[in-house]
Order: sequence, then structure tokens, then C-alpha cells
Amino acid sequence: MSADLICVGNELLTGLTENSNSGFLSRRLWSMGISVRETTVVADNDEAIRNVLERSLNKSDLVIITGGLGPTDDDLTREVVAAILNRPLRLNSFWLNKMEDLFKSRGYAMPENNRKQAMVIEGSLMLENKRGTAPGAFIECVDKAIVLLPGPPHEMQLMFDEKVVPLLTGNKDISDSYVKTLKCIGIGESALEELVKTAGRWELPPISYIAKGFEVDLQIKGYGHKVQAQSLISEAERRLRHLLKDYIFGSDDDTLAGVVAEMLMSKGSTLALAESCSGGLLSDIITDIPGSSAFYRGGIVAYSTYAKANLLGIDNALLAREGDVSDAVAKAMARAVKEIFRANFGLGITGIAGPISDSSNSPVGLVYIACSCDDNIIAKKLNLVGDRRAIKERSVQATLDLLRKFLIKLA
Amino acid sequence: MSADLICVGNELLTGLTENSNSGFLSRRLWSMGISVRETTVVADNDEAIRNVLERSLNKSDLVIITGGLGPTDDDLTREVVAAILNRPLRLNSFWLNKMEDLFKSRGYAMPENNRKQAMVIEGSLMLENKRGTAPGAFIECVDKAIVLLPGPPHEMQLMFDEKVVPLLTGNKDISDSYVKTLKCIGIGESALEELVKTAGRWELPPISYIAKGFEVDLQIKGYGHKVQAQSLISEAERRLRHLLKDYIFGSDDDTLAGVVAEMLMSKGSTLALAESCSGGLLSDIITDIPGSSAFYRGGIVAYSTYAKANLLGIDNALLAREGDVSDAVAKAMARAVKEIFRANFGLGITGIAGPISDSSNSPVGLVYIACSCDDNIIAKKLNLVGDRRAIKERSVQATLDLLRKFLIKLA
Repeated sequence: MSADLICVGNELLTGLTENSNSGFLSRRLWSMGISVRETTVVADNDEAIRNVLERSLNKSDLVIITGGLGPTDDDLTREVVAAILNRPLRLNSFWLNKMEDLFKSRGYAMPENNRKQAMVIEGSLMLENKRGTAPGAFIECVDKAIVLLPGPPHEMQLMFDEKVVPLLTGNKDISDSYVKTLKCIGIGESALEELVKTAGRWELPPISYIAKGFEVDLQIKGYGHKVQAQSLISEAERRLRHLLKDYIFGSDDDTLAGVVAEMLMSKGSTLALAESCSGGLLSDIITDIPGSSAFYRGGIVAYSTYAKANLLGIDNALLAREGDVSDAVAKAMARAVKEIFRANFGLGITGIAGPISDSSNSPVGLVYIACSCDDNIIAKKLNLVGDRRAIKERSVQATLDLLRKFLIKLA
Repeated sequence: MSADLICVGNELLTGLTENSNSGFLSRRLWSMGISVRETTVVADNDEAIRNVLERSLNKSDLVIITGGLGPTDDDLTREVVAAILNRPLRLNSFWLNKMEDLFKSRGYAMPENNRKQAMVIEGSLMLENKRGTAPGAFIECVDKAIVLLPGPPHEMQLMFDEKVVPLLTGNKDISDSYVKTLKCIGIGESALEELVKTAGRWELPPISYIAKGFEVDLQIKGYGHKVQAQSLISEAERRLRHLLKDYIFGSDDDTLAGVVAEMLMSKGSTLALAESCSGGLLSDIITDIPGSSAFYRGGIVAYSTYAKANLLGIDNALLAREGDVSDAVAKAMARAVKEIFRANFGLGITGIAGPISDSSNSPVGLVYIACSCDDNIIAKKLNLVGDRRAIKERSVQATLDLLRKFLIKLA
């Protein structure tokens, strides 16, 4: 089964409202084994909506349209769909009463233009909106299905999960494609592809490579019937895991920080961070993990030489001799923060995030990272490219990977 | 002039990579007065790309394609565009040398498959990529233009701003003439709309309201000829600034953190942060600002009671009596961190980010924030809704606004 997504709304085409609906629906459909063929953002304009919808109905079995169900004149989705299907649109008293009650409960009389939202396309199944006034609709037409959902994400999401998912899955196995993602770090996208290509003939499912800074997602797409697809994926996964070993840090919904957090928690270990050029980003990522207070003791953002000397207690002579951005200072930061927070592991990051260098004239992108545990310490020098944000992100990815490899070695 | 955007990539259709490119390009084009007609996300599949591109070339004057310029076999954009235009694709030694040098400077030999990225469509103007290996291209064909840009946002954005904007505008001033955004904080979207509506008749340009956490962007859209549009916008801006006063923290590309940073720097003041529930997010945002080391001394992520007591030196009796999440502890954090880092301003944030409460059973979303300067201290209690990330983000927005208001009062 394949699906097309159509997001209707002028505000999306100006980019002023972020279009989170296609991402949400894509992830949901994908996890149900329904592949999204195409997603389109289109204006509040009946001809434009009509063109896109006709195209999508020609190509896909399922078309989901978000937006354009509101009460105002530029909300046109309902009317266009009725016209394309050549079905009448009638005022439905059940939905009208429901809506009037909703307004009454909020202490208002229903504005006249909301009546429009109680117009029902003949033969459609209406979907209740618990968070707004616009009901959705599920419409079957010959061998296709059209789903209409409101544009505001918090209304749309709840309605999709509660009403649409059960209708789509029914009791049938609708999946025709399956996907497995293996997540790699420590090897570039091209090198990874070369490695896979040179490892022997590949008669297995197609693989896509998606680079995200230092991480590369390797996506295996099965095909055919469910059993066949799953067996193809398993065989490909087995071969790739054998080939790529520790380059693979996780799969599917795993994150690098989440995987490292699991490793720390399973050992009952604790962590502390000393960040300079990454400026708190690693701490932010760690604390996005629910329950991270179980292993994360805290961190120091030592954004000045003063902080490195006085908060972390790094020897002023060492700072003067080696410079803030050095192997020795990264190691000293990792060691110090571990002691200060009484943690098992300490990480240190120091570098030049740019856009210009500091007084030392070290090149932008030069970063030293270090990981300390008991009397062991490892460090790494990085030469990063990109803007300030990219350098921060890559420093953090590399530091998490340094800790991950350290934990693997200890295991 | 109208534009179509085509974002190529399987990873976007699975929703696993957020498609930020269409939002970015839409905003940029819109501010240049070029309206986006349609945006499409399409798979790494030559037939699919070809169909969408042909459709877009029929409807729009400008088509921007992002993604599919990488070195791997599933990167097909270059080939499809060449085929549609019926133009040859040739290996270009200038770009090949450039790429080989780039790899050499990073200490690697260039993998064989990167050669593909030096293939040039006849008659195209190549666009240098300062942040990656894939060059872009600007191709004129009869009365249309096609722009090819790489998929990774930080590569694409720089290339668009530096290379594509000048080509599109061609020395003419078509920028920023039609839209002005005023950025507000401290007032909700509906309250803001009510305030504007009740302030008198509005015969000025239409306004849109876009809420982002605690921030609300208020967008004024001019119309007509450039001079008319700009005068309408100026008059609307004048009235809105008079009405909304300090709710407005900036305009257009301003960020709340950037505005606060400017205020601190213009006073020659320094800042230090003590974060608990926000986990380093505020520090991360501050250090995203180039040059922030001029005022930001550093921070402590006190993610445990141990850290609050031993790093910030907060009295154990106070922590026991008031609890980690309290007005008194937020104030103590702000005061302590200011002293420790010898900064002029100290900020403290402590709360429950969820998804479950701590041992105190305080409700998820309860957050105290504080701002300290000399002997002055102000604090605020927040009751936030949303998931862990939303609570972190809103805590940080509210804290920056607390500091902003404090700085306005001092001025």
C-alpha cells in the first residue's frame, strides 16, 4: 500500500508555520508499513488542491489531506473533495448540534461560519475532533481511501492515532514494505558505501545512506510479502552487522545519546561533563533523555579560562603552556569534572567553534575531546568543518562515540 | 515570479529526517517577494523526480531542488535534470581537483564514488559548497531557472544565501519589501489578537499570528507596489509598537537570546548560568551566538542535589526545607553562580521537566526561575505544559525574558 500526503495552507508555503504534519504522518505510516510516495504542500486554492488530489489518487491507494477544514472562506478542502468525487455535501444536524454544544460549553454562541464544518460528504465516515471544531472524514471510493484531517498538529495527531489508525489497519495485513535502519558512527557515508560494495556481491534489498553529521543511517528496505521482506531484511542485517561491527551503535529509533545512557545505566555508572566549545549542548542532549537524572550528575560549562582554572581547578601553568584548546587541557577537564561531581565517568570538550579563532590563533574546527574513568583516560583530536552549530554538534557526537567505545572496551 | 520546491530523499518520506529545507527556502523566497506555489517531497527514484520536475517546470518560473547530489548510487538529481533538459553531463576537472584537495586537506584519499559530484550539466553555473563535497548548480533554460542544492541544511542554507540570492535578485532590490515580523513574548497568541482588535479599527495590512512556545511572531504583510507596501507596513509597525511596547522584543531575524546578548554586551556586562531542569539548553542557546565568549563566563548544570549543595554551595538546610524546586533555591542558584563566575548577572532555573515527578511530588511543569544582579534579585514561578522538551524550551524562553525585562528596568 502506498500513500500520498497533501498539506493545505498558505501559511505553510510562506514557511512561517513549520509543517510538522507531513513528518508526523510519514513516521506513523512508515511504522505501519505503509510507504509514503509523495508529500505536497499546496495553497488554499481550489484549483491547486484539485490538481494535486487528482494526481495523488492516480498514483496512490491512500491520500491523507491535512488543513483547509476550518470555518473561513479560504478553507476549501471539503468542497474540492466532494466535487472531485462528484458527491453531494449536506448539512448534518448531528454534527451541527455537537458543534453548537461545544461553543455553548465554552460560553459562546456559535459563529455562523462554523456551520460549514458540519457539512458532510455523502458516504463519508466522520471523525470526531476532541481538540477543536473541525471534524475529519474517512472516505472510501472504489479501491482508494481519502482521509481529511484538520491542520493544527495537536488536533490532527490525536485524531490520526485514535480514529484513523484503527480504520487503516482494520484486521488486514496492509504492509507491503518493511524497513530496518542500522545507525553507524565513526565512518563516513562514502567510506561506508565503499566498504559495503567491496564486501562482495549484494543481492539483498536496496540500501540507502543518510548522513547526519558524524552519524550515518543505513536503511534496508525489504519488499514482497511480509515473510519474504522480513527474511531479506534479517539476512541483510546479519551481513551488515558482521561487516560493520562497532561502527553500528544502534537501530531504528535508537539515538547515540540514548544508547550510551543505556550502557551507563546497565553498569550503574554515573557521568559528569566539562564543556567548553560545545557550550552545554551535550548536557542538553543527555538531559533530553527521560530518567537521565539516574546517571547524570551534572556539568560545568567552562566557557572562559577563568572557569577552567577556578571551577575545574586546572593548573594555570598548564593552561598557559598548552593553551585552552589542547590535548592536555581536554584530559584535565575530563579528570577534574569526574572528581568534582564524584562521577564514574568524566568527559571534556575544548575547541574553537568559530566563526573566528581565539587569541591562540588555533584553526576554527580544532577540537580536543577526552574521556576519563578511574585511572584511565583517552583523548582524541578532531579537525571539524562547518559553521558554529555544526562544529558543536560534531564535537558532541564524537565525544559520545568516544565514551561508547570506551564502554565497549571496558565490557 | 512563482517558485516550486522539490525536496528529494527517501529519509524525508519516512519522516526520520525532518524536512527543514522547504521551510527555510519558503521563508527566504517569501521575504524576497517570490511566492512558493507548491512544495513536494519525493523519493530517490528517477521516475518520481522526473514526474515532479516536469510538472513544476510547467507551472512555475523557478524550481529549486534539494538533495540527491551526494556520491552514492541513490543520488540521482543531477542525472534526472540532465536527462530532462537533454543536456550532456561531463566530468569537470576543475571541480574534481577541488574535491580531491578537500579530501587531502582532511587527510583522506577521495573515494572513487565522489567523482560523480564533479559531473557538470552543460550550460550550468556551478555553486561552490563551502561545507561539504556536493557542489550545487544554477541552470537557465529558456524562461525558467532550475537550482540544485545539496540536502544537508547547513550546506544548503549557506549556499542559498551566498550564491543563489544574488543570482535571483540580479542586483535588483527585491528583498524584504513586503513583510515585516514583530517578535513578541510575555503575551499569548489570542490575548495579542484581542489586544490588537480592540485597539481600534484596523485598515492596515493583514496580520498573521504565529506562536512558538512563549514567543508569538506577528507578521505584517504589505501589498501593492513596493513603495505603497512599505508605507503600509511602516504605519502598521508604528501603531503596533505603540500598542504592544515591551511585549515586542525584536523583529525579523532577531532571536530572544540574540537581543538579550546585545543588551548585555552594550552594557559591558557578563553572565553566568545555573541550570537544573533546563539541563544546559540555555547555555547551548547562548553559545550558539557568535562572539558570546565576550559576555558569557560559563555555567553549572546542577542536575543533582549534590551539585546544588557542593558546586553552587547552596545551604543543605535550605535545600532540605524548601526542596530543590523552590523559589528560594532558584534565587540561591542565581546568586551563587554569579559569585562563582564573578559575573554581573546570574540566572537560575530549577523545576520538574517530567515525564514523572521527583521524590517531592511537585507537579510536572512546575519551574522557578531567578535573575540576580548586584544586590537585586527577581524570581518567577511557572506552571508549564507539554513534554520534557517543551518544558525545557519554555523555561529557557521565560528566563531570557526575565533577564530582558530586568535589563530594561535597569536601563
